[in-house]
Amino acid sequence: MLLPDIKIPTLLLDESVCRRNIARMREKADAKGIHFRPHFKTHQSRRIASWFRDEGVRSITVSSVGMARYFADAGWNDITIAFPVNLREMAEIDALASKISLAILVESAAVTARLQSALTSRVAIWIKIDAGYHRSGVSYDDADTLNGIARAINSASMLRLRGILTHAGDTYQAVGPTDVNQRFSLSRERMLLAAEVLRGSYPDLIISVGDTPGCTVADDFSGIDEIRPGNFVFYDVMQLHRGICRAEDVAVALACPVVSLHEARNEIVVYGGAVHLSREYVADSRGTQLFGLVAHIENESWGAPIPGAFVTRMSQEHGVVHLPAEHRSSLREGDLLAILPVHSCLTAECMRQYRCLDGTPADHFAAAHPQTADSDTPHNTEDPAQ
Amino acid sequence: MLLPDIKIPTLLLDESVCRRNIARMREKADAKGIHFRPHFKTHQSRRIASWFRDEGVRSITVSSVGMARYFADAGWNDITIAFPVNLREMAEIDALASKISLAILVESAAVTARLQSALTSRVAIWIKIDAGYHRSGVSYDDADTLNGIARAINSASMLRLRGILTHAGDTYQAVGPTDVNQRFSLSRERMLLAAEVLRGSYPDLIISVGDTPGCTVADDFSGIDEIRPGNFVFYDVMQLHRGICRAEDVAVALACPVVSLHEARNEIVVYGGAVHLSREYVADSRGTQLFGLVAHIENESWGAPIPGAFVTRMSQEHGVVHLPAEHRSSLREGDLLAILPVHSCLTAECMRQYRCLDGTPADHFAAAHPQTADSDTPHNTEDPAQ
Repeated sequence: MLLPDIKIPTLLLDESVCRRNIARMREKADAKGIHFRPHFKTHQSRRIASWFRDEGVRSITVSSVGMARYFADAGWNDITIAFPVNLREMAEIDALASKISLAILVESAAVTARLQSALTSRVAIWIKIDAGYHRSGVSYDDADTLNGIARAINSASMLRLRGILTHAGDTYQAVGPTDVNQRFSLSRERMLLAAEVLRGSYPDLIISVGDTPGCTVADDFSGIDEIRPGNFVFYDVMQLHRGICRAEDVAVALACPVVSLHEARNEIVVYGGAVHLSREYVADSRGTQLFGLVAHIENESWGAPIPGAFVTRMSQEHGVVHLPAEHRSSLREGDLLAILPVHSCLTAECMRQYRCLDGTPADHFAAAHPQTADSDTPHNTEDPAQ
Repeated sequence: MLLPDIKIPTLLLDESVCRRNIARMREKADAKGIHFRPHFKTHQSRRIASWFRDEGVRSITVSSVGMARYFADAGWNDITIAFPVNLREMAEIDALASKISLAILVESAAVTARLQSALTSRVAIWIKIDAGYHRSGVSYDDADTLNGIARAINSASMLRLRGILTHAGDTYQAVGPTDVNQRFSLSRERMLLAAEVLRGSYPDLIISVGDTPGCTVADDFSGIDEIRPGNFVFYDVMQLHRGICRAEDVAVALACPVVSLHEARNEIVVYGGAVHLSREYVADSRGTQLFGLVAHIENESWGAPIPGAFVTRMSQEHGVVHLPAEHRSSLREGDLLAILPVHSCLTAECMRQYRCLDGTPADHFAAAHPQTADSDTPHNTEDPAQ
């Protein structure tokens, strides 16, 4: 199918840009001598996963038990579920741990005890560290709790302490590369302090960190054993906005039909809204909210962002695009425009399917797995064809 | 399945509350002598649609061609697609118009001409009016454009002018019921002005308006022929926050496993984030962002919102809940909490399946129809089993 045949909002994926992003991060990890365990929650695609495999990647990170099973069924057998363990899915975790090398996150001795009593297969354990982001995890300087959890893991026959892990999510709030570097550095130092608490008793402990801004711009990874970035596979307007990537590194764009023209207010309306892009935005220096950047579609791809053009408002299916007159003259209702997403992880989750530029599709975990807990839904099937 | 068996984030639906919301709006429309054409984009469910049918509803509104087909295949044969017509789906519109009474929206004479040349079945046309929301539509006071479009429709053999239609979306920005009433009134008066321009030549013209805040609180509908509210079927925290509904009118809540406890900062983390709830928020009087309200799960349902508790931050799968100590004491990792969503339309679109309180599921259009344009995907099949 050619791009002109697209009828409704469609998430375009540029394989060559995506493969370049993967190769660059893998090369950086190699150069630093760090284990690369990319987070697959951004793309959630077996096809894109195969591009990582082409780069020699064998171990991965995911954010849910269902997603772990999706990739395990596609042959990935070294998976970390980087989310505080959900005790309601103990049976599913146990089943998966009998098949692959599975690692999960804990942050309390009580949870550790409940895992030990429920599991029949051995699971690797990361202690989740809060290095300043204040979302989840044990505070890096809480030596008593760290030692208590480590002892509880060590005495549990089904659990094996692998190391300490953090997500320095505050690098996403950084204003630019220098700020990212400072935040990443602080987080790294705090991880080393936490490791120091435990290394006397657990010399093989490894340290895992992961966030796209930090892993992209930082140079000093000393003491770090593993990185788990995810978003870099696509990047997006948020990373572009903060100077973490260039526009030509953004690997996905939403093709949107133009549905109405509003010359007097320099706006057009596209079919493409919150259900396609998500409601994530970035604010410019004057506080104006941008819900996406805009590019023309040409030669079976999308071009550079149009200067001065952006998605200024959105509703469920409408995107209102501010488009300066000089870029608007030839547009008609029914034409296509490309929207570069603010947060590619969420846009991919909304769209649940990719269209590569050669017209072939790429899968997304969530398409076959509606967010539901019923045990009789596809979410819990183990059919590799799903 | 009992609520305690829920394993992952699950969208609960209280049928009795939902049916009460439907009945109340239908009764109001009846009392005012107005045609009721509810918008189904909020629920997108054939099962919930059947509850409208039980209330005597026979004509509906949807927001996409695919959604129109989904309900047409379930026996609904009077459908308005309340979105500026997407000329890239002309063939699909034509096919649907050959089977049911279909209405679409136009706002330019050029689009009208392109429709006429492409259609082989007759379609009813609404002229979309901008009554002050400035999203799409012809300005209510632009008599020349209104007359031009009406003439173009009138001279097109495949098109039949039904009336003028607006979405007074600015009532969603209103601070309370009085403000909603004022905005709704202004929008109503402007629709009457637009109708006056056309009624000389088109005496049968009807006027359609639709927004949940206005249709819920307004009393004066004089001159209005049809209402198209959608969100009222579930309501949500946004409507509660603005005084449009009561907490007991909210018909959906996300059941979320508790995954980590943070006593020192009065927070807990639940499995339930932006991919489940959407990133929509409301701001309180001090500018604090609320991404959801919180309730206990008990007796196979959820309770009243816990005073002082709310979702204060979220990431892709994490929700960080501020929870005062007195409501936190008995909570353990692995327990369930209910999150009342800020914007139920977006949460339903994220989740794509409902679990009624008796354990039975309710469908959602998007589950079987990933957002994609490929002509060989389920989006374009006409299999009623989809």
